[in-house]
This record gives sequence, C-alpha cells and structure tokens, in this order.
Amino acid sequence: MIAALDALTGSLTALASEHATHVDPVATVALWLVVILLAAKLGGDLAVRIGQPAVLGELIVGVIMGNLALVGFSGLEPLKSDPSIEMFARVGVLILLFEVGLESTVGQMLKVGWSSLLVASLGVVAPFALGWGVGAWLLPDHSVYVHAFLGATLTATSVGITARVLKDLGSSQSDEARVILGAAVIDDVLGLVILAVVTSAIVAADRGGSVAASDVALMIGKAAGFLIGALVLGVLFSRKLFSLASKLRSRGVLIAVGLAFCFFLSWLASLIGLAPIVGAFAAGLVLEDVHYRDFVARGEHGLEELIHPISSFLVPIFFVLMGMRTDLSSFVQPGVLGLAAALTIAAIIGKQACALGVLGKGVDRLTVGLGMVPRGEVGLIFANIGLALSVGGERIIGDATFSAVVVMVIVTTMVTPPALKWSLGRVRCGAGPRSGTIIP
Amino acid sequence: MIAALDALTGSLTALASEHATHVDPVATVALWLVVILLAAKLGGDLAVRIGQPAVLGELIVGVIMGNLALVGFSGLEPLKSDPSIEMFARVGVLILLFEVGLESTVGQMLKVGWSSLLVASLGVVAPFALGWGVGAWLLPDHSVYVHAFLGATLTATSVGITARVLKDLGSSQSDEARVILGAAVIDDVLGLVILAVVTSAIVAADRGGSVAASDVALMIGKAAGFLIGALVLGVLFSRKLFSLASKLRSRGVLIAVGLAFCFFLSWLASLIGLAPIVGAFAAGLVLEDVHYRDFVARGEHGLEELIHPISSFLVPIFFVLMGMRTDLSSFVQPGVLGLAAALTIAAIIGKQACALGVLGKGVDRLTVGLGMVPRGEVGLIFANIGLALSVGGERIIGDATFSAVVVMVIVTTMVTPPALKWSLGRVRCGAGPRSGTIIP
Repeated sequence: MIAALDALTGSLTALASEHATHVDPVATVALWLVVILLAAKLGGDLAVRIGQPAVLGELIVGVIMGNLALVGFSGLEPLKSDPSIEMFARVGVLILLFEVGLESTVGQMLKVGWSSLLVASLGVVAPFALGWGVGAWLLPDHSVYVHAFLGATLTATSVGITARVLKDLGSSQSDEARVILGAAVIDDVLGLVILAVVTSAIVAADRGGSVAASDVALMIGKAAGFLIGALVLGVLFSRKLFSLASKLRSRGVLIAVGLAFCFFLSWLASLIGLAPIVGAFAAGLVLEDVHYRDFVARGEHGLEELIHPISSFLVPIFFVLMGMRTDLSSFVQPGVLGLAAALTIAAIIGKQACALGVLGKGVDRLTVGLGMVPRGEVGLIFANIGLALSVGGERIIGDATFSAVVVMVIVTTMVTPPALKWSLGRVRCGAGPRSGTIIP
Repeated sequence: MIAALDALTGSLTALASEHATHVDPVATVALWLVVILLAAKLGGDLAVRIGQPAVLGELIVGVIMGNLALVGFSGLEPLKSDPSIEMFARVGVLILLFEVGLESTVGQMLKVGWSSLLVASLGVVAPFALGWGVGAWLLPDHSVYVHAFLGATLTATSVGITARVLKDLGSSQSDEARVILGAAVIDDVLGLVILAVVTSAIVAADRGGSVAASDVALMIGKAAGFLIGALVLGVLFSRKLFSLASKLRSRGVLIAVGLAFCFFLSWLASLIGLAPIVGAFAAGLVLEDVHYRDFVARGEHGLEELIHPISSFLVPIFFVLMGMRTDLSSFVQPGVLGLAAALTIAAIIGKQACALGVLGKGVDRLTVGLGMVPRGEVGLIFANIGLALSVGGERIIGDATFSAVVVMVIVTTMVTPPALKWSLGRVRCGAGPRSGTIIP
C-alpha cells in the first residue's frame, strides 16, 4: 500500500517537474507534506495495531521511504534535503519538546524526590560511559569527541514513549510509574546538559582550542544556570505574562503567546550556546495550567489541547525525515551492523543501572530499569545535531553512525512494551508486596 | 511599546549574529517567529479595541515593522527575505483559504441562489474592469498584463472580514448577511478563476507566445473544470476517505488527513497551472462535518476546531510579512499615492455594482454593496503572486504597485465596519419592510 502510494506520488512528482517552470514553490512543499503526513499516519496505525507506539511506525515508514532507491525508485530522494521540510521538522522538534515539557511541572519535578534523581543520574551516567566505551572500542580511529557524542545519544529516556506504554497498560498511577516518569524527566534535563557540554567542547575543539576541566565546569555551570534561571524566572513571571496576554482581544492569543514563549526560550538557549530544544523543554516545564486559567475560565481550550493539532502536523515530519535519512545500504559497510548492535546493548544494559537507584520498598526494580529503556525522539534529535558538527574536518556523526543510532532507537523502543508488560504482570501476579493489585 | 519590543529584539539579534557561527538555524527562525507572533497579537488587540478586525492590526503592525529602517532601525530587515519565514507564510495562506472554505459547504453555495450569483458576478466584473481602467490610465507605460493583474487584485471580497463584522454587529442571520456571505464565497471562486486566467496569460506571454481568445477560453475551462471536478469528486469520495481514516489508530489522524487533503488539492491545482490557494479553498469547501462525524462521535474535536491553533500560528506570519513588504518610502515616488487612491476608489465603487444584483424584496441594497467592500487576504495574496511574475523582464507587480495594493486593502477593510454599522442601523430604524427588527 505504501509502495503504491509512493508510486503514485512519484509519477505525479515527475509530471509536476515538467511544469516546474511556473509552479509556486509552496506546491512542491505541499506535495511532500501530503506524502509525509499520510505515510506517518499509516505507519503509526500499523505500529499501534501490533502494540507498539505510533512514533515507531513513523520512523520505520520513513526508513522504508528513504531507501526506496535501493529497489530502483528515487522519486522521494529530493525530499531528504528539501530545506523547507527540514525547517518544518526542526520547528516540529521544538514543539515536541515544548509539549513534553508541558506534561510536567516544576513542582512535580521537585516532588518526585531523591529516588527519581538517583535513578535518573545512574541512568544517564551508565549509558553515557557505556556508549563512550562502545565508540572507543569499535571506532578507534575516530576522535574522543565522536566517542563522547555517541555516549550522549544514549542518555535520555523518551518520556513520551514510556508514559504512553504505562498508560496503555493501565499502570500510570503505580509506584513504578511515578519513579520512572520522574526519572525520565530528570534524565531529559541531564541528557540535555551532557549534550550541551559535549557540543560546546566539540565547537571549541573545532576552533583549535583545547578543552580544560575548567571549561567543562563552565559549560556545566552555563547549562545548569540557564535551566535554573529559566525555571525560576519563568515561574516568577509567566503567570503575570499570561495574565497580561489574556487581556488581548484577538483570536488565538493563548497559543500565539505560548508558542512565542517556547520560541523565545529556544532562541535564548541557542544564544548562550545550548541546543534550542533545551529552551523549548524549559518553556514547557515552566508553564502550568494556572498560568492560563484566565483563558480557560472564559471557555477557551488549555495550552496542551491547543498544541496537539500543531504537533500532530509538525512532529511526524521530523520522525519520517529522520527515518528517511537512515541509509540501509550503510549496513553493508564492515562494522556498522556491529556498532548498531553494540550501541543497542549498551543502551539497554546501561539503563539497568537505574534499578540500583530505587530507594523505596515495594517498588519493582526490574520494572523501573526496563521502563527507562526506550530512547525515541531525544536520541534522534541528539544524533541529528551531531550530523552538523565536525572537528578538524571530521564529522562527529557520519551517515553510518547515524544509521546505527536509528537502529538503537528503533530496537530500544520496540522491546520496551512487551518487556514492561511481562515485568508488570510478573509483579502483579507474584507474591511481592504489591500482590494486592491483581488484574481482574 | 512595539518600538521598545523591536529595540529589544534588535539588540538581541545583533548579539546573536556575533555567535552566529555555531547557532542552530532554527534559532534565528524561532526569534523571527517570536517577533511576528507578539507583534501580530498586539496589533490585533489594538485593532479590535477600536472596532476593526484583528487582521487589519496585523497588517498595519507589519507596515510599521517593515519601515523602521526609515527611522534608522534596520534590525528587522533580514526578516523580510528569510526563506523559512516566507515558506511558513505561504503554508499559512493555504491553511487560511482551507479554513475559509471549511466555513462554507458546497450545499450552502448551491442554495444561496441566483441573487448571490448575480451579486457576486457584478461584484467581480465591475472592480476588475475599473481596476484595469485605473491601471491603463495611471500606468500607461506598462503592458496590458499589468493592467489586467491590477484589476484581478480588486475582485475578491474578504469573506472572513465580512463575516466577522456581521457577527460582531449581531446581523449574521439577516437577509443581507445571507446574500453577502453567499456572494462573497462565489466571488472568491470567480476571483480565483480570473487570477488563474490572468496568470496563465502572463506566463504564456513571458514565454513569447501570444494569448488568443481560444486560449483564454481554455484557461477558464481548466479553472472551472478543476473547481467543479474537485467539488464533485470531493463530495463523492471525501466521506469514504475520512471514514477509512477514522479507522487509523494513532493520535491526530483527523487533522493530519484533513491537512493532507488540503495540501494535495493545493498541489493538484498548481499542477494544472492554477494557484495552490484555489485547491486549498476547494478542499475546505468539499469537507463538511458529516465527513468526520466518526471522529467527533468518539469525542475528538472537529476539523474546524483543530485547524484554529494551526491558523493562529501560521496565518499572522503572512499578514505581518505582507505589511512588512509595504515600502512606505515608495509613496514619495510620483504617482504612487495617486495610484493607491484611484485603486481604493475603484475597489469601493466597483463593489457598489453588487447592489444591482439583489433580486429579492426587503433586502437593503446599500448594505449589500457596502458589505462587499473589504478586500483583505485575497487581494494581498493576489498581489504577492504578482510580485513573482514578469513578462519580458517587466515585473507585473513592482514594489510601488504592491504598496498601493496594500493601501487599498487597508482602507477598504477600515471603512467597512463603520459603514456597515451605519447602514444596518439606518435599515433597522427606518420605515423599510424590515422595520420590525428594531434594536432594543
């Protein structure tokens, strides 16, 4: 069905390019958007039908679309490098991180306590070290920056995928869920800090400077300072901002001001050398329902509800595009398949360190470790940032490494739902302290 | 306040460009989006406060932002030609026309009857001829294509602005409102056909061909064929399409499929040589609530509600950008102010021909004529298309002409609310056949 769709759009594209001399540039972009949106929803549907998160289907359908040239169809090749689609995808990622941030509040983050913080720290340090080790072992000819960056791509748990799986299994309110979700939020933050540090080190090295321990400390300070500063100032002023905005008398003020807040922090993050997604995520964390209650009180939708259609439109563009950039032919290169396998194992084993961080009694440690496994969006976003970085002419993330990271993301995402289902079932039916909650 | 905002963002931009070497490209776009969204909502608020539609405020705030270089501030100049912002604006226009189309159904269009059709036809032909005449009179050195294109920019009433004003005045259900809204929809279609014909003639002429009467007939046939074909096939198949789509099990299917439908028809329109907006508008006309009742039945929002946040995000980008491209300094050129005045007068007087088309009794003809005056988005979209066209190296719409069109749009939009308010008040309080409906 997808092949038929591609064949159709391909022949139409060929037809269109004949007329290209007087075609509005938006027409080509519109066609790519049609292809991406339909493919994403079909892929998402298939994934959901076999018990997987929709994002996995979007990614895999992208991998298929991006490698049709291997079977002789190259009509979709221009899509991979279309600058407008690229920018839609980048803005989509900001929207996604903003949306993920909106799901949590600063208060919740402070409440999840030491258990989540410890789980998150172990779950960031262990995969970072393992990923770095895998890089040093399998890519010995590459610089230390490549190894460190590979480690960074393994750090952040995909809070969206974890939350979705727990919700589907009816376990959103369990003790394990609270620890996992709290830790997933904190490890997003820690992962973003590691990304900021590694990226800054790479940029500094590329300019010929070396990176001293004091520089690393400075970068960590800058990243932490931005996040804490944004959160503190945001919490202090955002209620005032939205209260002022609620007095504006035109349509769509809440969504416009919310997006402007997200984009402003994204730009601010970039200004001090952090990835824009750090700002978008911080913006989401800062904003809470109470900030825009003046809008909701007069019958408007809340920000989370308003952001949904926009993310349904823009976010799949990112995942399909990332899938398309996965070059399956790179796997015939010696070592790429091995790298993918080693990264995936490092990603899964690394997160089992989380089990050691669980402090409370009655919380199943294996479930926590398994729940932290999926990487999803953040790993892909990190890898995509790596594609644009280089040190002394050496690309940090080459096409082959990018493909290996995509495989890691796909496999960690695919194994989580069945593993969690098994693990939660084991706890519920066993003789553990929570055996009271037997499934009817 | 706007100046202060600009000063702030300007100094921040300067700061950012120092760091530009390692800035993610999305960061700059994010900053422009912040500036545009906040300016649009502030401008919209001011316009609404003085009884004008929000779109007028967005346009005027854009004019101010685009001409700050005249007072020595040039920090916003790069925004005018940023390719990503340009593409966001273009996609925003497709969303806008789709949204306008969604407000009407094919059935409603067929029902409004001969009165609206006659009103619309007179209201398209008269301004087209007058605009052509103004061009021939004031721009005698330019080719006939320039004159014809100027006429085309005067044709389409802005159904959004008219509907909004009537709603604000509590007259949405009056006989006049039904005739005006029906005619406004039809004259959008007729305007799009005229645009298609004039544009095709210009493209043909630029290739060295001349345009025979048979060619014009062919183009009219193609445009009418596309619209009728899209409407008939759309009505036949779109219910089936959305019924199939409702079986897809991932989030955001309705908005994704709805947008894909809009973008597909946009691309198809472009493929046969029409403006993509024709397709977007046709897509909106075709879709009705019943097509996606399967989604609504299970508690999801309808398409019109889902499209709102997306249009609140993307549409203001178009209007602010159009405002910014209005070069106030062009008015010192001899004749530009005169051209703007003549176009505005032609636009207002031309639509008074609509009064002649009112067939029923008890419908106030003056109110109908005044209600058709505002041009708004469609005139701007036409002018923007003209910016990219040329015949034998002569640009169809130069910067000066574009500025004159923007003035026409601003003035026709500004005069309508007070004129309609006066005219409806006159009818209600007078001794006419509808004097029963006196304002309490």
